[in-house]
Amino acid sequence: MTTDDNLEQEKNIQNDDSVRKSRRTFLKLGVAGAGIAAAAVSGVKIVKKMEGTPLDHFPLAINDDYKPIDQRNQINVFGKSKVLNDKHPERNRAFNEQLKKENPQGFKEFNFYKDNKTFMSGPYRDTPGFSQLELALAHGGFSSARQQLGGGGMEGPKHPNSVSHWRQDMLVENKYQFASPQEANLAIKSAARTFGALRCGITKRDKRWDYNPMYNSHTDQVLTWEKDFPFEPKTVIVIMVDMDYHAMAAAPSWLVDATTGNAYANAIKIAGQLNVFLQRLGYHAIASMNDVGINAPYAIAAGLGEGARNGQVITPEHGPRVRISKIYTDFDFVEYDKPRDFGVASFCKNCKRCADSCPSQAITHGDPSWGPDYSSDPDYTWHASHVILKFHNDAKKCNKFWIDNDGSCANCIAACPYNKPDFWHHRLVDAGNVISPGPVHSFMREMDILFGYGKVSDPDRVKKFWKLGKEV
Amino acid sequence: MTTDDNLEQEKNIQNDDSVRKSRRTFLKLGVAGAGIAAAAVSGVKIVKKMEGTPLDHFPLAINDDYKPIDQRNQINVFGKSKVLNDKHPERNRAFNEQLKKENPQGFKEFNFYKDNKTFMSGPYRDTPGFSQLELALAHGGFSSARQQLGGGGMEGPKHPNSVSHWRQDMLVENKYQFASPQEANLAIKSAARTFGALRCGITKRDKRWDYNPMYNSHTDQVLTWEKDFPFEPKTVIVIMVDMDYHAMAAAPSWLVDATTGNAYANAIKIAGQLNVFLQRLGYHAIASMNDVGINAPYAIAAGLGEGARNGQVITPEHGPRVRISKIYTDFDFVEYDKPRDFGVASFCKNCKRCADSCPSQAITHGDPSWGPDYSSDPDYTWHASHVILKFHNDAKKCNKFWIDNDGSCANCIAACPYNKPDFWHHRLVDAGNVISPGPVHSFMREMDILFGYGKVSDPDRVKKFWKLGKEV
Repeated sequence: MTTDDNLEQEKNIQNDDSVRKSRRTFLKLGVAGAGIAAAAVSGVKIVKKMEGTPLDHFPLAINDDYKPIDQRNQINVFGKSKVLNDKHPERNRAFNEQLKKENPQGFKEFNFYKDNKTFMSGPYRDTPGFSQLELALAHGGFSSARQQLGGGGMEGPKHPNSVSHWRQDMLVENKYQFASPQEANLAIKSAARTFGALRCGITKRDKRWDYNPMYNSHTDQVLTWEKDFPFEPKTVIVIMVDMDYHAMAAAPSWLVDATTGNAYANAIKIAGQLNVFLQRLGYHAIASMNDVGINAPYAIAAGLGEGARNGQVITPEHGPRVRISKIYTDFDFVEYDKPRDFGVASFCKNCKRCADSCPSQAITHGDPSWGPDYSSDPDYTWHASHVILKFHNDAKKCNKFWIDNDGSCANCIAACPYNKPDFWHHRLVDAGNVISPGPVHSFMREMDILFGYGKVSDPDRVKKFWKLGKEV
Repeated sequence: MTTDDNLEQEKNIQNDDSVRKSRRTFLKLGVAGAGIAAAAVSGVKIVKKMEGTPLDHFPLAINDDYKPIDQRNQINVFGKSKVLNDKHPERNRAFNEQLKKENPQGFKEFNFYKDNKTFMSGPYRDTPGFSQLELALAHGGFSSARQQLGGGGMEGPKHPNSVSHWRQDMLVENKYQFASPQEANLAIKSAARTFGALRCGITKRDKRWDYNPMYNSHTDQVLTWEKDFPFEPKTVIVIMVDMDYHAMAAAPSWLVDATTGNAYANAIKIAGQLNVFLQRLGYHAIASMNDVGINAPYAIAAGLGEGARNGQVITPEHGPRVRISKIYTDFDFVEYDKPRDFGVASFCKNCKRCADSCPSQAITHGDPSWGPDYSSDPDYTWHASHVILKFHNDAKKCNKFWIDNDGSCANCIAACPYNKPDFWHHRLVDAGNVISPGPVHSFMREMDILFGYGKVSDPDRVKKFWKLGKEV
């Protein structure tokens, strides 16, 4: 997005009533604003903040009685693993099964992906962002992940379509020797850059973030690294790819699914390519998308972002507008990246724009906690973690909106101030974080609204999206 | 690449003898330079030049007795289609077969892709850019195209691994109606942008650029669109993706193959996704990489670039540092893009840096012609076109270097002034084209050398590449 685009957006928004109100807020808070702007001009601190401050520990507090997450708790929204669903109705049921049980009359199927015959009586409708045009784009977006894997990248380990099966035939005996762990770190990241990664971080394999027990999604048999994989991983390479700002800005429409599907395809592609790269260097490697282990804590541990209110990893430059994949390897002559503090967690406490924008009120307005505050019924909260101090959201409410909407949502991504393209205003938010975490964030939030960022359910965004072809 | 990088490069190069000479040239030509710089400041004309001037005709002269190109003349370097090779030794033989016949003693195999067992006795060696590290990266780069297709994207039509088989099962009956051909043009390009295309152009299907006869590479049987494909195409959507500047700058090393393989993967991915997008809109579509028809003239016809001295399509912003794929469709309610004059052909006449940098002297220093000037032996030039007025290069010499080098080359891409990242100097070249095509181009060429661009076979480039990981 160019500065011209931003200016145009800003101009368009001048006539809007809600903006006049925001502008008053802006003027009221003008003194704080001037201070922040002055700090922004000083430059150094801001750049430092974009890089973050290295930490010697995982940034979120973890309970003493921490246990790894049971793979049956992996949110298996669409019931991909029928075996796990059928054999573990007590906890692994897909949300839609659970919703059906709760409301058999009112329940409808998730209709996003219809086969050809039923496509025409399919879910598309006369609403901006939900016509045949957007559904076609979303199916196009996801088609590459399916082409690469046979599946969508969400399958569990040992599923024949799982990304962990990707090219396990390239291992060679010669082990390439790097001159130093630092050189190895840079070389792996250089490879990731060449294949199109937005970000790459390297961290120690941490059993806390791997599913355990881990299941074969075909047979319900318990899998272990020792028994079922050709090596014990020592290192995890984490990859981030971005999603399109303009498609996300049109949330909640199928444009979101189009760029999500495309990001899945890119994340799978790059993880697969790095898996071959490592095997050709003589080291075992397995590419992984959502299977085997959890992406978010690995991304945080590798210094790529922070856990945020909306349950996602927020990066300083793209916010939550990213997808994550990873590569497990036994290569360990490599310098590990440290987790980093970018000021996101502190910003999240005050911002709450994702929670305000959530159509199903699934995102908490509260503070980080050791468990859900939306329900104390264990039958409702079986999927929730109780071992990490974090924001807890109601995943089932979120999923219900997906089903009602026949598509995903991403309002919480579109609304996030960190999501927007790089711009002086973006830098200011970061500067604000450096100077005075706390009340100033509320000002930053208002300023973000003033500039027209993060508005959701806006039909003009859909129209704008379909004209961006002029850029290519 | 940042301006800082360019400045660093410039600084590093100050102590070099050859540069002192260039600097003298620069000073001698200072008056012309000042004029160009002044023009560059005026801005408007330069931007216009980056967009090019629309033309009402195909920009290259075509012979009256034009016939489409026989698919057996498709350069089948690695003998992928054994049937076609064996059944048509008179013209379709792979270059390496021909080279073996000419020099049975001195002939060696092309060793770029070794299987695992022989990888260790493979072609990697103690030369910068040709170690196990770069070969591993190159194999990683190409692995995604193989994963997507089963093959590398170079197979002929009806080969089971051909990209033209990609998802032929998504067609729906409802035909989406666009409000206008202009809207359809923008929508298709918007889809291409979302999936990661650098450029997209839409042109009429033109039988001159489709192989005819076209062969099933398995059976040697002649194929026709009428008989063997489910529809007669009316429109061709052309996609461009870029290759990495820094990998190309390290030509001729395996870093080139790494980014080439990756670009193949991206080009295949996007063409496949658009093929699904069109089918879901109710229109027939087939994705195509190197099979079915020729990419270069379709890209020129779609206004994406111009035919250049090195035999490739040069785009105004990325030069020849692009890969092309396409989608054939029967959808034709769409505004077609026009071919465009960007001043490239005129620049090529004077520049000749690709020809100077070619390690096998395969690229002509001469002017465009109706046929090869390097040989009059029809047994040597069977693959050459005699129907288009263009630069003619000796493809077999080029291929021999690939075999000797156990990798591809791309010096002609790395040396091209249009290849370099966007920078004030780049704009100046374009400004020069606007103001005074002809002798000034020689000055621009010297200036390009002065600034350290387009140097090939430079081991420092390989070292620099492996440190760029810090950017992700």
